Amino acid sequence: VSDRRPIGVFDSGVGGLTVAAALERRLPAESILYLGDTARLPYGTKSEQTVARYTQTNVDFLAGRGVKAVVVACNTASALALPHLATALPVWGVIEPGAERAVELSAGRVGVIATESTVRSEAYAQALRRRRADLEVLSRACPLLVPLVEEGWLDDPVTSAVLVRYLAPLLAAGIDTLVLGCTHYPLLAPAIRAVTGPDVRLVDSAEAVAAEVAAGLAERGLESDRHTGADHICVTDAAAHFERLARTILERPVRLELVDLHTAGGQEP
Amino acid sequence: VSDRRPIGVFDSGVGGLTVAAALERRLPAESILYLGDTARLPYGTKSEQTVARYTQTNVDFLAGRGVKAVVVACNTASALALPHLATALPVWGVIEPGAERAVELSAGRVGVIATESTVRSEAYAQALRRRRADLEVLSRACPLLVPLVEEGWLDDPVTSAVLVRYLAPLLAAGIDTLVLGCTHYPLLAPAIRAVTGPDVRLVDSAEAVAAEVAAGLAERGLESDRHTGADHICVTDAAAHFERLARTILERPVRLELVDLHTAGGQEP
Repeated sequence: VSDRRPIGVFDSGVGGLTVAAALERRLPAESILYLGDTARLPYGTKSEQTVARYTQTNVDFLAGRGVKAVVVACNTASALALPHLATALPVWGVIEPGAERAVELSAGRVGVIATESTVRSEAYAQALRRRRADLEVLSRACPLLVPLVEEGWLDDPVTSAVLVRYLAPLLAAGIDTLVLGCTHYPLLAPAIRAVTGPDVRLVDSAEAVAAEVAAGLAERGLESDRHTGADHICVTDAAAHFERLARTILERPVRLELVDLHTAGGQEP
Repeated sequence: VSDRRPIGVFDSGVGGLTVAAALERRLPAESILYLGDTARLPYGTKSEQTVARYTQTNVDFLAGRGVKAVVVACNTASALALPHLATALPVWGVIEPGAERAVELSAGRVGVIATESTVRSEAYAQALRRRRADLEVLSRACPLLVPLVEEGWLDDPVTSAVLVRYLAPLLAAGIDTLVLGCTHYPLLAPAIRAVTGPDVRLVDSAEAVAAEVAAGLAERGLESDRHTGADHICVTDAAAHFERLARTILERPVRLELVDLHTAGGQEP
């Protein structure tokens, strides 16, 4: 039995392609349909109600396009919207796999950097403490990191100064592990590493979620035996920088389809 | 004759309150209904088509609430959406008044800082050159400034470093006037002034548009004789920082109403 329908992956923007890239490496026989909701990004400053509504629209759109499962490759949407989501498809978020990996690595003190909304939700803190109750968790919202990535200032003294500001309290508190709790942040990993030094372990949810998806598809008999060549990226707005960053992340040329969520597939409630 | 209906003012977020504050100072007898489209902000990275659609929804919402005129207090929406807007109400944007003021002040070389989309539209460059064809105009997109304002880092070494980076090419080219082409930027005026020095004139569109609205209302016999006490702020998403920044800008407590543009007033097309 083989199921060649694509896996749907969505993020508010381009960052979730770090998860798509991890899926491509881990599951080369699977095709991916990616949706970047660029018309409504960022999600990280918005309320639970709004992020839940946007997430439902995105999942409905992907379901309408015939995916067999959905990966919510956005930490904010994973943190705020998964409990409210109505769908018959298997769905994976990035919080639980990231928390799992952090618990494996940490000796007891974990830092989490994420968007405002993810931090406010305490989703990581709860997922971590559910696994190990005595874990010390220090969270910090870093609202400037996404715009710095989108500006392309990945290796830049301004970015370093911002990172020092954000990370100093976590480092002073002695974290041994740092969760990169936003799909944009892996692009800053070298800059973050330069601030933390080599002794702090960095957790990127992308690899962890790819492993969980692989296991989940196998369990449900949904694996594909052959890549159909139908990898495809949809965006809700034609942002100029998306294609450039997408090429950097996927290390290949990309073709974008501009979609309107109000007419194609999902309906705005 | 007196028309006590409110003036509708909208922006993607909190920044347009700098325009509302200027209107309050200039026209104390007018009431204001403000709409911050926080669920879909920022506009400054989005396409003309998307910004035009959002702007139409916002104007329809304000019209549905009974305003007598609309001020588009968002530079991006003024630059991209005004030509596409369908409404029977008088509408003012912030680009033309800002350009008018810059031409009055400049000896010949004007710098414009704005969002990516506003710069790409060339709306300021065109508005300036229409008034004085030999004016030299240098534009620079500054995508980090809005997030820095929303982070509240108004007086901060990181903000100074970012401003130095953005402004250095304009200052090296010898601008004598600098247009603050985004409604968030007046909040950074002291930090910008510290980088430009005292010889560069800063143009804030808020004061300029307030003067134009005053003249336009008088011309059309739409002036109010008495403030009705009905100043009101609507937002499309309950962002935590909005209230704090709104208080800073308006210098008084504010009360927010959360609205859904899809059901109340305007319809999403």
